[in-house]
Amino acid sequence: MVNLAVMGHGVVGSGVVEVVLSHQEGIKRHAHEELNIKYVLDLKEFPDSPVADRFTKNFDDILNDPSVEIVVEVMGGLHPAFDFVHKCLCAGKSVVTSNKELVAAKGAQLLAAAKEHNVNFLFEASVGGGIPIIRPLSQCLAANSVLEIAGILNGTTNFILTQMIDENMSFKNALALAQERGYAERDPSADVDGDDACRKICILAALAFGKHVYPEQVHTEGISDLSLSDVAFAKEWGGEIKLIGHVKRMENGQIEIIVCPMFVKKNNMMAAIDGVFNGIMVNGDATGEVLFYGKGAGKLPTASAVVADVIDCMKHRQARKYLFWSDDAAPDYVQDYLDRPTAMYVRVSGNAAEQVEAVFGHVRWLANADAASGETAFIIEKPLPERTIREKLARLADMGVCVQNTVRLLHFNAEENEEVIA
Amino acid sequence: MVNLAVMGHGVVGSGVVEVVLSHQEGIKRHAHEELNIKYVLDLKEFPDSPVADRFTKNFDDILNDPSVEIVVEVMGGLHPAFDFVHKCLCAGKSVVTSNKELVAAKGAQLLAAAKEHNVNFLFEASVGGGIPIIRPLSQCLAANSVLEIAGILNGTTNFILTQMIDENMSFKNALALAQERGYAERDPSADVDGDDACRKICILAALAFGKHVYPEQVHTEGISDLSLSDVAFAKEWGGEIKLIGHVKRMENGQIEIIVCPMFVKKNNMMAAIDGVFNGIMVNGDATGEVLFYGKGAGKLPTASAVVADVIDCMKHRQARKYLFWSDDAAPDYVQDYLDRPTAMYVRVSGNAAEQVEAVFGHVRWLANADAASGETAFIIEKPLPERTIREKLARLADMGVCVQNTVRLLHFNAEENEEVIA
Repeated sequence: MVNLAVMGHGVVGSGVVEVVLSHQEGIKRHAHEELNIKYVLDLKEFPDSPVADRFTKNFDDILNDPSVEIVVEVMGGLHPAFDFVHKCLCAGKSVVTSNKELVAAKGAQLLAAAKEHNVNFLFEASVGGGIPIIRPLSQCLAANSVLEIAGILNGTTNFILTQMIDENMSFKNALALAQERGYAERDPSADVDGDDACRKICILAALAFGKHVYPEQVHTEGISDLSLSDVAFAKEWGGEIKLIGHVKRMENGQIEIIVCPMFVKKNNMMAAIDGVFNGIMVNGDATGEVLFYGKGAGKLPTASAVVADVIDCMKHRQARKYLFWSDDAAPDYVQDYLDRPTAMYVRVSGNAAEQVEAVFGHVRWLANADAASGETAFIIEKPLPERTIREKLARLADMGVCVQNTVRLLHFNAEENEEVIA
Repeated sequence: MVNLAVMGHGVVGSGVVEVVLSHQEGIKRHAHEELNIKYVLDLKEFPDSPVADRFTKNFDDILNDPSVEIVVEVMGGLHPAFDFVHKCLCAGKSVVTSNKELVAAKGAQLLAAAKEHNVNFLFEASVGGGIPIIRPLSQCLAANSVLEIAGILNGTTNFILTQMIDENMSFKNALALAQERGYAERDPSADVDGDDACRKICILAALAFGKHVYPEQVHTEGISDLSLSDVAFAKEWGGEIKLIGHVKRMENGQIEIIVCPMFVKKNNMMAAIDGVFNGIMVNGDATGEVLFYGKGAGKLPTASAVVADVIDCMKHRQARKYLFWSDDAAPDYVQDYLDRPTAMYVRVSGNAAEQVEAVFGHVRWLANADAASGETAFIIEKPLPERTIREKLARLADMGVCVQNTVRLLHFNAEENEEVIA
């Protein structure tokens, strides 16, 4: 029998308790041992919980009990989660977490502690909720070099965008609906500003390319500036707007990494990912494109990913898993996003065809379904370094053209588009 | 250093050699050991191979060399593959295979031999080529009860159907194109008759539900009877025709399992899977729907899945993986497909509205873009046991109505559609 402690009894924590209790037979079949919830750490009380007698408010009860071999951290946030997790690892306990903020900020340090103390630190649930991605990326694709990853990593923003696209609902109303349905929090900034997606692409980048990437190093834009005319122009272009986390290894050893709304072509599988679903596309040198799709959040999907990691810890009590990345990236490991080549959608006020073509040469104009707005939009189809585009847009502004919005185009695994005019 | 033998140097086997040689550093980083190809077994000679000096025509060289710990079987077919694999397992060697025919026919027996001799028998590449599915199903979804799996499991037939749908190409011409591009073999029957997809859904069913299912137990239909008018009617209905392998656990402990063309709604992710790509949708009680998508075949994708399994064997030289299913299913474990409830598309000659409604009551008629053909088609929307539908179609025939074709509708995770009128 293996003893487990669950730190945090919020949505995911109560889900972990529920999944452990309801899948006891399956857990025993997979792990060849029984799993016992010995402690649940929470400051609140839950007298109606089936494990009400296991609750404690004192972390030391868990830390100092040598019979607890595995600890689940589902409190969220950095403090005290980091301190607790670090202490558990140093005490020889394996830790499983769903806390992407923790892994994105402290992953390298915690993996080093786990390695030093010969225990496991697993976090399948930190990216993609119930979608298996961390393990497939580290194991199934082990005989691959990952070239590139692009993901719809945040269900809240994808729900909002789907409402805008399918129901012609404004951003504000779609956000209100997401809040009403419990998909968005009262303060939705971590989701709509892209911070949550940023943490996840950092974790995937670290795992794929072996070096920790900090969220502060990643240029991140949210979706709150998108209008229904951007959505309509994207349709006219032949695609949809999605909030994408994208990372790609460059030949010089740097990575380009960004989180922002992107135009995604209709024939790309990512365009078919609607509502609260997530999808992660991995391009490997041997496998080509592989996509993982499912519910990126929610109580039971996330809890089941946590418990799958717990089962893995039970099976690897002697043999540590080799999940690892280092914290020794060069200062310029992450390329300046302004050097990143991209194709771009641009929406301007009024008819500025003459000025636009004077600055950009030939561009692709998009028809405007809402001609009354007086807005026009065009696509810079040939990727240019973003700095060059920004400079040209500044020239346009100097010529009196009002640029309303810009959205990058997703180029995934698109070799033919990689030629860049510097 | 771990010694490996590769049995078979065809498309996949030469890919395995290539991936091992080109990813030596990555393999060492993941497995913490070097991997050495000690033997390649093939009756042909390959003087230009970088491992030309390791070739042997004698299986006993491999079997009797105790320094060979891991054997890759990529010969295909049942004989001598089964005999060789069984002997290797009994000699204490772990075996990795991409051979779906072998796993579907002999999986339970080989898993039992592996268990008995405390070695691994792994076969990630047998389903979905380079798409991680076996390991996610057995590990990441371990804290789930799998309810249902539906998959596009054969790239050749999906390529043919995509040509029919997107290019209005006849089955015959699309098959010829697939052969020309090397996607289909000269004798394409294993693909177009559904046998290949059948083996794969059997493997997934065994893994998900714990009991071996033999291909002979599964009602299997191919795609060669589909016409362009079926494709057009599917569009009119709001979807596409895909060759689907489907398995579902029933409340009474039986499973329903079938391989056949199905109408798939446009808003189902499976409808977006085009060309030679595969996709496998798993519905778990905790995760909900999860989809795995990628190239289901091809030299390097398949080889990379084989090598990932080899790396896993290297990491688990002491601790056996717990991949297992039994061969003790009850005789009626697989439900008679005629008892399986389904909604159905029916294409008939001429206008038979009166007779159809007399037999089936209200049905949904589909508009015919090609009215000159004189054909009409309708959908039996409320699922009925297939036996009931067949009986009613026989009554229609008695009334002089000529039924041209029928195609089942995919109901995946569709609780609202599960009400059945018996």
